[in-house]
This record gives sequence, structure tokens and C-alpha cells, in this order.
Amino acid sequence: MHFSVTILGSGSALPTKRRNPTSQYVECNGRHILIDCGEGTQLQIRKFGVKLQRIDYILISHLHGDHYFGLIGLLSSMHLLGRIKPISVYGPKGLKEIIEIQLNYAKSTLGFELHFFVLDAKSNGCFFEDNILSIYHFPLCHTVPTIGYLIKEKKRNRNIKKELAVSDGVKIEYMNTLKKGRDVIDENGNVISFKKYTNPPIEPRSYAFCSDTNYYEDIIPFITNSSTLYHEATFTEEFVDRAKSTFHSTAIQAAMIAKKAKVNRLLMGHLSARYNTGDLHVLEAKTIFENCEVVEDGVTYSV
Amino acid sequence: MHFSVTILGSGSALPTKRRNPTSQYVECNGRHILIDCGEGTQLQIRKFGVKLQRIDYILISHLHGDHYFGLIGLLSSMHLLGRIKPISVYGPKGLKEIIEIQLNYAKSTLGFELHFFVLDAKSNGCFFEDNILSIYHFPLCHTVPTIGYLIKEKKRNRNIKKELAVSDGVKIEYMNTLKKGRDVIDENGNVISFKKYTNPPIEPRSYAFCSDTNYYEDIIPFITNSSTLYHEATFTEEFVDRAKSTFHSTAIQAAMIAKKAKVNRLLMGHLSARYNTGDLHVLEAKTIFENCEVVEDGVTYSV
Repeated sequence: MHFSVTILGSGSALPTKRRNPTSQYVECNGRHILIDCGEGTQLQIRKFGVKLQRIDYILISHLHGDHYFGLIGLLSSMHLLGRIKPISVYGPKGLKEIIEIQLNYAKSTLGFELHFFVLDAKSNGCFFEDNILSIYHFPLCHTVPTIGYLIKEKKRNRNIKKELAVSDGVKIEYMNTLKKGRDVIDENGNVISFKKYTNPPIEPRSYAFCSDTNYYEDIIPFITNSSTLYHEATFTEEFVDRAKSTFHSTAIQAAMIAKKAKVNRLLMGHLSARYNTGDLHVLEAKTIFENCEVVEDGVTYSV
Repeated sequence: MHFSVTILGSGSALPTKRRNPTSQYVECNGRHILIDCGEGTQLQIRKFGVKLQRIDYILISHLHGDHYFGLIGLLSSMHLLGRIKPISVYGPKGLKEIIEIQLNYAKSTLGFELHFFVLDAKSNGCFFEDNILSIYHFPLCHTVPTIGYLIKEKKRNRNIKKELAVSDGVKIEYMNTLKKGRDVIDENGNVISFKKYTNPPIEPRSYAFCSDTNYYEDIIPFITNSSTLYHEATFTEEFVDRAKSTFHSTAIQAAMIAKKAKVNRLLMGHLSARYNTGDLHVLEAKTIFENCEVVEDGVTYSV
């Protein structure tokens, strides 16, 4: 099963040639999710070969422009390219108003249904669930209401030990029950044990997205044991005071959160335009948390 | 004296790798003007080496996204880069509301004054004038209120015939009067003729911007004798019906307007994403008006 994130923009407020403003494309077992949508995201989508119309869900973290100024253009292009499939947009209060006022002045009626869901940036919980995944939101600590997201696979069925089941003559119609971790009693009253005929499934993977935020330990319960944590690291330690005053984080702070939350891997992004590379971020973060890297536009990371 | 237009985007609603949505940078004798500002304009500005903070005036033609979605990002970046100089934005009703709602949700206060001037898209007239140039607006014919612009140099002073003036001993203090086209009577009662000692100035140049519009002869009086006319040419003649129904123009229609308005040169842009090159546009337009070309992103054209 596939679970990956493609970085469409890893920069911060000022776009650079190397780093567009924040946007990420998450593919999770056939679900296609866009997180944030800075200016120029639609061009990045085309550049990196992402299939625009596959996206069904858009999550916006907050209403700073480098996280959503590209949304109206993206929706317009989806319309112009003939989209009829509905799309759902989740984010803080205000987004609907901003998008609708622009559609109204353009006298535009989209060819597809646009569903807005307002998330309360001060609370947390699961706001989306299907048979594949669940999506949770939780508060970050920034200058405006800002939402963190966690995309988590559903727990999978157990895996049948095929050879053993076949050689013991376990009937096909019992398989689904066994996969679900329940024993079967056959017509002769024999117990067919799910433990004997199945292996446990791999643990559900999860992807946590935290941008923008100050160093904020309150998020740890929501992201604990994530397979992959994306955490903003706008600054290196030299600018720790600036990180604090602008409600951003340093690479070391991102690493501290990753360590305390016992995640498997840390991805860092939202780099200030002052940095040509993320080398120093990685150097500093590795002093706290080894399995980390700075993301680059156009690169896909397995979750 | 310098008068040029740099194309930042020559595409239409759907951006392509080759053509960004509409935006143009006009430099006229020390005045720096941006016309339209599609998504990604700030990146084009950087890519093509235009000095962002020099821009003091922004003219927006209409509220279709491919003509202004990049404005909020541009203003935000100007702020982040430390701008304190005021900026003036001219355009149709609604622009101020759209920009301000986004600034409000971001809790952003720009470090510079942002002056909005609403132009009536149904009327015409001069809305800006200084000692260098005048800017006029006039109505185009599109699906939403859409404004055409004409930027015109002020009439210059006449040029002194230096050698003759020096050899005849014409006093320095008479020069300004002569340049203005007035004779001087010296202390001995002699008439010093401006015609003898000056050459006429070059004719004031003008740049007309018409995008987006149906074929619309009503604009001709406003753009007659322009040095350079930019006229949208979204389609070639094959799609003349589509041009009509979407309130756009074909290359031939742009050429007919150029011919009837007796302009010196025609620049065509706003090409539909279906065209890889503008070759067919030029081929068709030249059957009507010879001095024409299709503009390309990143190219600067003298007016």
C-alpha cells in the first residue's frame, strides 16, 4: 500500500527560485490530498507531474498567504480543465469568504461542488474518516489561528498464511473472519484459530504536518509515534530569538519535538529565504534527532 | 528617454510552462508601472531581473484571476522586503475589498501605504498625470467590467540647436523659453526665434493595453495613433466563434483594430494554452497589419 508525500513548496513567506511557498501532495492508498497551497502551487503540480484532478481533499493550515494564495488559482484551473468531481476544502474560518468573494467578482460558477469545512483552530479531533484513513486536526502556536494535521491509515486486516491455510484445507469463506482477527467454529464444532492462520498486519502509518508554529510541546500527544513528522524549521539556532518572536521554530526545536514525540522520521521545511541550502539545519537537528532531513521541492518521500 | 514594456506573462487563464498569466512591467522615463498581476508574477519579476520595489503604480484591467491573483502575494513580498514607499493600485470596484479581507485574516499591516483608486469600467478619461506622463482608461468589452489603459508621454520641450546657438551667442537664460517654443526679445529689441534655434521634439510616444476584450471598435478613438498597441489575441481564426462567445479576440481581429486605429506597432498576447507558439497568430495578423508580433515572457519591447 502506498503512502507518500511530494513536496510542492518548501519555502517560507518569500518564495525563492529553489523553494516555492508551502504546499504538499499526500497520496495515501488511493486518497489524494493537498496540504496548503501557496502561490504558484498549480505550476508546481504541473512541473512535478502530479495529476491535478486526482486531488479530492485540500487541507489549509492557516491564512497566511504563503499557505493559501495559490488556492483560488488552483480551483479556477480545475474548473477550466473540466472538473466535475466535488472537492472538499478544510481550514480555518475565513477561507470560504475569501474564495467566494473572488469567484463572485469574476462572475465564476465552478463546474464542480466546492465544500468548505471550517475547523476550529483551538480544538482537536478527527474530522475525516473512511475505510482507508482518518484525518485529525490539532492546534499549533502561531500569530494567527493555525491548524496541524495528522493523516493516519486505518488499521489493516491480518494477513492469511496462505500455504498453511491451503494445506490444512481452511475454507475460503472463513478467510474474511480470520483476517479480522476472529476465530471461526466450523460445522463440526472445530475452532479455526485466527492466530494460527494469520500474521498480524503492519502497523498503520501516519503523517503529521506542523507548519507554522513556535516550539510547542502541546502538540506532542497528537503526533506521538507518527511514522513521519513534517515540522517547520524556518531558522537555524543563530536566529532562535527571531524564531520565537515570529512564532516559528528552529531546526533544533523541530528535532526536540520529533524526539519527544518518538516519531520515526523528521522532515523539515518552510526554510527562510536567507538559506541557500538546508545543510546547517540538518547538522543542528541531528545533534538531537538522527533520522531527519530538509525537504526539497519536487521530491517524494515515503511515509 | 526610455519607454519600454517587459512581458511578465503572456498566457491566458491556464498558465503553461512557457506563458504565465498576464502581467507587464512598463518603464516610462523613470516611472515604473505594473499592468495586471496574474498568479506567480512576483516570481517572474525576480526571474527577469525587474526591480520589484521600483514599482509605484499598479493597473489592474479586471477581476478575472489570471489578471490579478498574484497581486496579494506581490504586495506581501514588497512588505516583507521592507518597503516603506507608498504604492497606488488602480482598477475596477472590488479589488480593495478582496485585498483587504486577505490582509485582515492574516492580521497583516503593510509597512507602506496602499492607495486604491476605483476606476469606472464604463467610462473613460485621464486618471493620472504628472510632468512625465498621463494615463488614460477606457472600457473594453468582456464578461466582467474590464478596463483598457493608455500610457502617454507628455509633450517634450523642443531641442536647442546647440552649435548654431553658441556661434550666434544666444544667451543661456533664453534657452528654456526657446525650448518651450516661444520667441525671446533681447535687451536690444531683437527677436530671437525659437524656430531658428530649436528643432521640434520627437512626438510623444504612447502604449495602449487592451486585454481582455471582444472585437470592439469603440476603443479605437482612445488608442488612435498609439506607438505600440498591446491587444489580446487569445485565438487564431479557426476559433473565431469561441472568441466571440468567450468575449475574447482573434489575431486577425487584433490586427483589424491596430489598422483602424493607425497604430505604429501591434503586440499580441493572452494566448490560449492550446497554442505552443504564436506563429499562426502572426501569420494571420500580418494579412491585415504588417508590423505585429506575439509577445514572449521575459522579453522587453521598446514602445
